[in-house]
Amino acid sequence: MQSFKHKLALGLTAIVKKYNIRAEDFILWAEVFEVKPIYLLDMDGPIVDFEGHFLSLWRRHYPTHAFIPLSRRGNFWVQEQYAKLDPSYPKLINKIVGTTEFFRTAPAVDGARKAVREMRECGAEVFFCSSPRPGLPQTALGKLEWVDRNFGEYFANRTILTQDKTVIFGHVLIDDKPDISGANPNPSWRQVLWDMPFNRSCNGMPRMRRWASWRSFLGVSRIAR
Amino acid sequence: MQSFKHKLALGLTAIVKKYNIRAEDFILWAEVFEVKPIYLLDMDGPIVDFEGHFLSLWRRHYPTHAFIPLSRRGNFWVQEQYAKLDPSYPKLINKIVGTTEFFRTAPAVDGARKAVREMRECGAEVFFCSSPRPGLPQTALGKLEWVDRNFGEYFANRTILTQDKTVIFGHVLIDDKPDISGANPNPSWRQVLWDMPFNRSCNGMPRMRRWASWRSFLGVSRIAR
Repeated sequence: MQSFKHKLALGLTAIVKKYNIRAEDFILWAEVFEVKPIYLLDMDGPIVDFEGHFLSLWRRHYPTHAFIPLSRRGNFWVQEQYAKLDPSYPKLINKIVGTTEFFRTAPAVDGARKAVREMRECGAEVFFCSSPRPGLPQTALGKLEWVDRNFGEYFANRTILTQDKTVIFGHVLIDDKPDISGANPNPSWRQVLWDMPFNRSCNGMPRMRRWASWRSFLGVSRIAR
Repeated sequence: MQSFKHKLALGLTAIVKKYNIRAEDFILWAEVFEVKPIYLLDMDGPIVDFEGHFLSLWRRHYPTHAFIPLSRRGNFWVQEQYAKLDPSYPKLINKIVGTTEFFRTAPAVDGARKAVREMRECGAEVFFCSSPRPGLPQTALGKLEWVDRNFGEYFANRTILTQDKTVIFGHVLIDDKPDISGANPNPSWRQVLWDMPFNRSCNGMPRMRRWASWRSFLGVSRIAR
C-alpha cells in the first residue's frame, strides 16, 4: 500500500532527526521526494495578538488596576505574572480570556494572513496548532470560530487543538513557548521560536520576529516553483 | 540532547513501518527501550455512544419522522444516509448534534471508562483524538466538556481535536472510520477498527468489538508490570 517514495521519505525523516540535520535541508529532500512539508503554527502569539488584545481589554475592564506593559511581560502564562501584582488578578484574567468573546475581537498578528497564504501557495501543508487555555474549554470554541472568521473554513478544518504538541506530526512548529514538552520525547518537528518579550532569555532555537521573514526560516525558496 | 535510547527508538519506529511489523511487536520493543506506547482513542463511536444517543434524541424530537435503526446505519456520516430519506433531515440532524447540549447528555460506551483507566495503569500514554463535526464548532466545546465530566480533568487535557488524524503521532489509533486520510501519507499509528454497522464491509484492519478485549489488540499484557 505504501509506495517506495513514501518508505524512503520515512527513512529520511528518521535520519534527519538522528543526525540533527537542519530543517531547511529536510525541506530540500521533501522536494526531491515530493513530500509536502508540514508546518504547524501556534495561534496565541504568532497568529493571534493574544498579549496585546488581553492588555487592551484588561485596561478597559479594570482601568484602576495595575497592569504590565507588553515589553515587561516576563513569563509565558499571563496569569502567573499578574498574580505577583495581586493574587486576585488571575481570576479576573480568566474572565477576560476564557470567553468566546475574547477571540471574537482579537486581531491577527501583522503579516500572518499573507504568510499563511504564501505557505499554502508554495505547496506546504499548513496547520494551526493551538492549546485551549487549560480549564477554559470555551477558548476551544473561540479559537475555531476565530480561525473561520479570519482565515476561512479551509483553515478552520486545519486547526488542531491540543494541550500536548509533542504528539502532533509536522516538520516545523512555529511557537512562542520556550519549553514545550509532552508524552512524546521525540517530536517530529523542529521548533522555530516566535519572538516574545517573555522568551528572550531562551537560546538554542532559531528566533522569528516577523512573518515577512518566514521563507528564510523554512527554507521555502527551494520548494517554491 | 536526545539520548541514545530515544534515537534508537526513533529508528525502530521507521523500521516497524517499513517492514510492516505488527503493533504488538512494536509494543514489546517499546518496553525494552522504555518508550511508553501512545494510544489514540477516537471519541464518537468507541468512547461516546454517538449513534445511539443521536437516534434516541431524533425519535424524541421528531417522533413522526422516519428513522434508521442502528443495525441499518450504512455509512459514516449520519447526515448522508438520512438525506436519502428526506433532503430536509441533515439540517435537523445538525440542530441536534451540533450543540453542546448533545454531549451534555451523551452516554459513554460500555466498558470504555474501565479500559481507559487500565491502559493508563499499564503505563500507556492515552489521548482522546476526535474531530469536531465539520462546520459545527460548538461540538469542540461539547466534547471537551464531555471528557472533563466523564473522564476528569487529566483526560480533558489529553483530548486532541483535529479534522486530520494523520498528523497525530501515536502507535495505535482506535477509530470506527474506515477510510482515514489526510496531509500525512504515512501516519505513525496502526488503526484498530472499532466495529460499527456502517464499517462491516471494511477488511484489512483488526476489528475491536468491545472494550473488555482491548489487551489482545494492543498486546499490553507484555508491558503490564
